[in-house]
Amino acid sequence: MSETIRRIAERARAAAMRLAGASTADKNAALEGMAAGLCAHQDLILQANAQDVATARSRGTAEALVDRLTLNPQRLGAMTEGLRQIAALPDPVGEVLDGWRRPNGLEIQRVRVPLGVVGIIYESRPNVTADAAGLCFKSGNACILRGGSDALGSNRVIARVLAEAVEAAGLPRDAIQLVESTDREDARSLMRMNGLVDVLIPRGGAGLIQSVIENATVPVIETGTGNCHTYVDATADLDSALAIVLNAKCSRPSVCNAMETLLVHDVIAEEFLPRASDQLRARGVEIRGCPRTREILPDAKPATEEDWHTEYLALILAVRVVEGLGDAIAHINRYGTRHSEAIVTEDYTAAQRFLREVDAACVYVNASTRFTDGYEFGFGAEVGISNQKLHARGPMGLPELTTYKYVIRGTGQIRA
Amino acid sequence: MSETIRRIAERARAAAMRLAGASTADKNAALEGMAAGLCAHQDLILQANAQDVATARSRGTAEALVDRLTLNPQRLGAMTEGLRQIAALPDPVGEVLDGWRRPNGLEIQRVRVPLGVVGIIYESRPNVTADAAGLCFKSGNACILRGGSDALGSNRVIARVLAEAVEAAGLPRDAIQLVESTDREDARSLMRMNGLVDVLIPRGGAGLIQSVIENATVPVIETGTGNCHTYVDATADLDSALAIVLNAKCSRPSVCNAMETLLVHDVIAEEFLPRASDQLRARGVEIRGCPRTREILPDAKPATEEDWHTEYLALILAVRVVEGLGDAIAHINRYGTRHSEAIVTEDYTAAQRFLREVDAACVYVNASTRFTDGYEFGFGAEVGISNQKLHARGPMGLPELTTYKYVIRGTGQIRA
Repeated sequence: MSETIRRIAERARAAAMRLAGASTADKNAALEGMAAGLCAHQDLILQANAQDVATARSRGTAEALVDRLTLNPQRLGAMTEGLRQIAALPDPVGEVLDGWRRPNGLEIQRVRVPLGVVGIIYESRPNVTADAAGLCFKSGNACILRGGSDALGSNRVIARVLAEAVEAAGLPRDAIQLVESTDREDARSLMRMNGLVDVLIPRGGAGLIQSVIENATVPVIETGTGNCHTYVDATADLDSALAIVLNAKCSRPSVCNAMETLLVHDVIAEEFLPRASDQLRARGVEIRGCPRTREILPDAKPATEEDWHTEYLALILAVRVVEGLGDAIAHINRYGTRHSEAIVTEDYTAAQRFLREVDAACVYVNASTRFTDGYEFGFGAEVGISNQKLHARGPMGLPELTTYKYVIRGTGQIRA
Repeated sequence: MSETIRRIAERARAAAMRLAGASTADKNAALEGMAAGLCAHQDLILQANAQDVATARSRGTAEALVDRLTLNPQRLGAMTEGLRQIAALPDPVGEVLDGWRRPNGLEIQRVRVPLGVVGIIYESRPNVTADAAGLCFKSGNACILRGGSDALGSNRVIARVLAEAVEAAGLPRDAIQLVESTDREDARSLMRMNGLVDVLIPRGGAGLIQSVIENATVPVIETGTGNCHTYVDATADLDSALAIVLNAKCSRPSVCNAMETLLVHDVIAEEFLPRASDQLRARGVEIRGCPRTREILPDAKPATEEDWHTEYLALILAVRVVEGLGDAIAHINRYGTRHSEAIVTEDYTAAQRFLREVDAACVYVNASTRFTDGYEFGFGAEVGISNQKLHARGPMGLPELTTYKYVIRGTGQIRA
């Protein structure tokens, strides 16, 4: 075990104990201070970021990764605005979720409390540093941030600005700490710091998430992978289906709630697929189809077994013609990642069955899967979209960064 | 990866899909059938169990373990009664936890659904086979049971009886499966069956739980370890404190909610400790004290650092005199296992601070920690007491064996 990480975790735990009892006003003052700090230190942050970007480029880093790494005044402004929005959200800590009195007079309440110490393991997007720290902080958690090595210079400045704002508000600055080591063993230690770290949230690509799941003994909240489907049923309103399909695929193909596979009922395939194909191709979408799809769309590439498993995050769409609802549900439950799944139908019974039988965080009738998002659900900022089943499912906002404790008030009761 | 375990898990997943939509009436009929089946096959079960016990004895197994392994008509009766009680509990599946309409007209509901496939990894208590299977089944989950090798003969008969009752009720018998292999690699495969197994619940001693945490990539719900404290504050009603201490230590010392360490405020230690010591010793309790305790109780053995960490589960009590509330809270947060912690006090501010600052699933004022229990909380049967923070904390009943999904009904909405 890394002693550096242990010391960070011990300081985080001590900070978490204090932060758990902090007032909403003090936490909000710190968040406003963080936002102001990012503005005030814009030059310093952009300078450090420019150096990170230059180093990444000199190492031959792919342009897409360099883009994620890059900050500019606009992106920094979005980080600042994000922190202010978090300040404006209601504080989940202290909410009484349930309460009752037992026959023996014991008064039991279930009260929302912070998780404690949250480890955020992420890649080279420095905006995650502010977003994740802000959400953890507002929900009363200390966080330990372990970002990608490419962004270390940027993260160091950002994390210092955030921690200073915490301290200026009279709260423990160790509530926000950055792991400055890029040693893999240190990352592994963080993942195994049971008793000091309460939960890990990996944010990034499938490889990162898989590595955390493989190595962690601390509980993990899995987020992100979205191999999402839209099923156009026999009775679908085809105009509506087309609008939903185009929105789900094309409005932002790089995000987890975008559609990756289109399933179409055989009886409407010949009518629907050519229309959809024209519109999709006009937007630059490459279609990979099953044999039946390719009978209808001879230009489509053949889809392989791997295509059904793939989250493209790009303008590529796998298309399969199915025999009916049962087939569609079976396909989704086999290949989906339990994120967001939609049916387009006018058939009440089909809609009800889809909602019941599809195993996913979010199941839709007659709407785009793109709505799976904290803001679109009305929650505000989110720390990620969980596609595991334990603790939280779907968009994870502030309440999902808390747990509860049972508070029991007695008058001397003993158990018979 | 073990192919045997993969096949079991695939069958369990298919069964879980069907079970998720099963009616409460059908599930209850199956549970009643399980209870009736255990009665009807009592001789067969006791015969298999007698063989397990004989084999265990011939291997020189410790008598305490043999006792846990042993079934008799009374214990079998308790298993039967447990299944009937589970049938009588409300079905958590389908509960609408929240629901709202968005400005764009989307209707969002958060609906309780089963977790899916639950792996139960336990030791040699064959009653766990029926208890855990019954709870998982009622909450709509398929379960994979992996019990200790000592109990394999008993578990095989019990699991068959349970699965037959499921089938007789028209539900998939693969919803209850026993891993008959005692191979460690098979157990390890079960712990890494991500995508097919949704959650693991280890039930047993600290070693078993630690091994699951170390090896699992499937999410784990940690249960059981209870290093519980009672703190007697300066203003405590000492008669009440004495009753609570005796109850917490002596009413059932072998369980996780029993007290292991007594903390006493210095200003009342000279009055309280001799009284408590007399009563505790009269009940056979061995006291291990800090230096200050041993000034007051010269006969007490010295407590070592290890004692503060130890869950004795026996008639042994560590005792420490503390300077005050802050000291007591610091001790509990350092050595406790976040299970159940109590303060005895008449001081309002001290009570409030203890409830807020002690980090545990259950925090008590003026009551015995022994109340941390599904029945005592009014929930009914429990699958364990969680002392981790993710998903569920404290007594885990049927709702804690579920997750939720977002059900979203639209009229063609697409995202701007």
